[in-house]
Amino acid sequence: MVDVPPVLLDRGSGTPLAVQLADALRAAAASGTLRTGDRLPSTRELAAALRVSRTVTSEAYDQLLAEGWAEGRRGVGTFVVGAAPAAPLGPAAAPGPARDAVRLVDLRAGTPCLEVLDPAAWRRAWRAAGDRAADGEPEPAGDPAFRTVVTEHLLRHRGLPAAPDDVLATAGTSAAVAELAGLLAPGSRVGVEDPGYRRAAGALTAARLQVVPLPVDDDGLVVDAVPGGLAAVYCTPAHQFPLGRRMPAARRLALVERARAEGWWVLEDDYDGELRYDVAPLPLLAALGPDVVVHLGTTSKIVSPTLGAGWLVAPAPLRTALLERRTATGTRPPRAGQRVFAALAASGDLARHLRRLRRELAGRRTAVVGAVAAAGRPTEGDRAGAHVVVPLPDRETEDAVVAAGRARGLGLDGLARHGTGSGPPGLVVGFAAPARAELEAALPVLTDVLGGG
Amino acid sequence: MVDVPPVLLDRGSGTPLAVQLADALRAAAASGTLRTGDRLPSTRELAAALRVSRTVTSEAYDQLLAEGWAEGRRGVGTFVVGAAPAAPLGPAAAPGPARDAVRLVDLRAGTPCLEVLDPAAWRRAWRAAGDRAADGEPEPAGDPAFRTVVTEHLLRHRGLPAAPDDVLATAGTSAAVAELAGLLAPGSRVGVEDPGYRRAAGALTAARLQVVPLPVDDDGLVVDAVPGGLAAVYCTPAHQFPLGRRMPAARRLALVERARAEGWWVLEDDYDGELRYDVAPLPLLAALGPDVVVHLGTTSKIVSPTLGAGWLVAPAPLRTALLERRTATGTRPPRAGQRVFAALAASGDLARHLRRLRRELAGRRTAVVGAVAAAGRPTEGDRAGAHVVVPLPDRETEDAVVAAGRARGLGLDGLARHGTGSGPPGLVVGFAAPARAELEAALPVLTDVLGGG
Repeated sequence: MVDVPPVLLDRGSGTPLAVQLADALRAAAASGTLRTGDRLPSTRELAAALRVSRTVTSEAYDQLLAEGWAEGRRGVGTFVVGAAPAAPLGPAAAPGPARDAVRLVDLRAGTPCLEVLDPAAWRRAWRAAGDRAADGEPEPAGDPAFRTVVTEHLLRHRGLPAAPDDVLATAGTSAAVAELAGLLAPGSRVGVEDPGYRRAAGALTAARLQVVPLPVDDDGLVVDAVPGGLAAVYCTPAHQFPLGRRMPAARRLALVERARAEGWWVLEDDYDGELRYDVAPLPLLAALGPDVVVHLGTTSKIVSPTLGAGWLVAPAPLRTALLERRTATGTRPPRAGQRVFAALAASGDLARHLRRLRRELAGRRTAVVGAVAAAGRPTEGDRAGAHVVVPLPDRETEDAVVAAGRARGLGLDGLARHGTGSGPPGLVVGFAAPARAELEAALPVLTDVLGGG
Repeated sequence: MVDVPPVLLDRGSGTPLAVQLADALRAAAASGTLRTGDRLPSTRELAAALRVSRTVTSEAYDQLLAEGWAEGRRGVGTFVVGAAPAAPLGPAAAPGPARDAVRLVDLRAGTPCLEVLDPAAWRRAWRAAGDRAADGEPEPAGDPAFRTVVTEHLLRHRGLPAAPDDVLATAGTSAAVAELAGLLAPGSRVGVEDPGYRRAAGALTAARLQVVPLPVDDDGLVVDAVPGGLAAVYCTPAHQFPLGRRMPAARRLALVERARAEGWWVLEDDYDGELRYDVAPLPLLAALGPDVVVHLGTTSKIVSPTLGAGWLVAPAPLRTALLERRTATGTRPPRAGQRVFAALAASGDLARHLRRLRRELAGRRTAVVGAVAAAGRPTEGDRAGAHVVVPLPDRETEDAVVAAGRARGLGLDGLARHGTGSGPPGLVVGFAAPARAELEAALPVLTDVLGGG
């Protein structure tokens, strides 16, 4: 039997209740709330539900039967026959490419490399995640299995020793920045690299904080140029986004020292931290300054944004404040994607995937650098991550190259999109999103576009 | 080969670089970054990665080999032998009951009934969710398949016609309240039922809004008592939380009219909306005032908080503002749980689950009402949802009953926990969380405790 559809009977109107009821049921069929084949409640059940006499429901049903809108089957009940059939319920068609009506080869930065994600490993991880029973309780800190595999990931891939209790699950890096912003007093000044990750600045601004752009050079954030009076500094020391440089050790130490001296939090977005193809990693800011650094990581770039899962490692008082806030507000990072990531890691599939991912992206990077060199242009950025920067003489050239690329089917971003505009002009070329074959086909076009061809 | 562990070489110190390197590798083994069986990079690779001469890396390896900390296998490489073995990677043990060292039968409100969730259906849904390829792009509005099944759910179970574009995925009701709060000017006054859902008030306060407690009577929110000057009103018309009453039609109309006249948003938390066991549902506020009402639903109570997925239906300008905020801040409700819910719905398992859930909870409710009556006490609240309220003469009695229950193994909440304290005294008895057998065993104790036994 179906749910009784919403029926609003107005005893004060001149219209008989039976007529009102028949009208309401017809309207429910027209809107799709009732469907052909649905069994209606018995006249007695409906009368009780609506708190009307059985005469009212019987009269209404008689009317609908007479109209051929419903039909009675002896001993079984009254069924809807005149309404629309149930809509098909399968997944909706995938949305088309969102950015443009024309299909562009996506050469923007910040997307994952799905081509190397083994579909069998992906399915295995979901299956394993679903083999665990549903949770009854909220868990503000995140899924315990997830927190455990994150400690292992941090230790093995980032050299950061942490206990599961030191780790909080997040809904990703931007979500974590937004949460942390909520702990700062409104109007607080927070420094953000410029050019830098605009969504971090957006999350801070949305939380009513004041964003202070910080200069970046070939060694990442210029620590000496950070003004006083800040509450926090957000930076990407592993692979500065978007310029692609690693912060050297001396600056790391200087940053942590200033943070201690001036009472900042340092938000260390470990962007591309897992993706280096040459030099050894430097110690994380979180390892140098566990008392002042919040380390932020995400599964979105190394696996997929489907998971919506990330992590943070923070000093204990900050973690406590975040957990209190999550409990008071009832908002916690959803655990479904955490479970999938935990399963992917526990099976060893994640380690295999990361090896494959590094190999693939290192190869793609070489190909992109070659295509840029063929146009007589240099690239900037360390041998790391999933994008390179091509310096250009001025913003006009940058705009022209982006437009020319677009006209020839390449979805490209200029550096202008990643900052306030005070940074250097150039092109950002991401190479993770397309399939390898699609990327290889796009590279001669990129050479042309950069060569002015 | 393992990642090269973080190594910070100080050329200015008096210590030879080879000694520093050997120290760093030993430290990596001690911390667990390196493990027994790991293959180290070749001396040439490591020299390149660290930008030191090969003499330095060779000397360091020789030292470690001499110490027996590493061993060379001819033609294969150098392996760690003296470090700790890899930690087991399985899911962490489930945390114990969080609230108390003693195991209590959980009779609080707001938890789902996992006992009727068919494990096979749950596994099927995860499997189907993982059969879909990983997403490469963020999707601020939520998973398209999820939005489609939500429209079907709203139409069939709540009588609300909505197109997929009208629906935005959320990370749950509280998360949606927090997001909406971010759209209001700081300091705005938002009315919240008192007693009511404290986490909604918490989310509003955390967003630096001013919460105005609103009185509630046997017909839910007292619309006539809502003061002027509000930006929004949050309420639970389907089954007022915690008092358990349904808002009658006249009040619904009056609320929508005042919202229109005074420019409020009405946040309709459809708490327990799917869980009624007697009377027909009344039209949703969102159906009466689609121009002023934000309708909020969640999967947490009808399935499990594991999913971390909910939905909202809102007027178009508000949806646009939310999507812009999600895009600017890079925060979107994670899609993994949305996929699982979409699969659960598309297979028909969700409809079967809801029927089973209603049947089970209606039966449990009857048993609880009986146990309370056996203590000579009445219950309040409609035949709906997953909790009843037992009015008590005063707050002292309420505290005493909660304490007596706890002493005898019942985890109970008083009404004081759900408001500012201005509401009536009484006990909230939730009946969804425990297994049926556990609940049945707890009911005689509840009778005793309420009877003063």
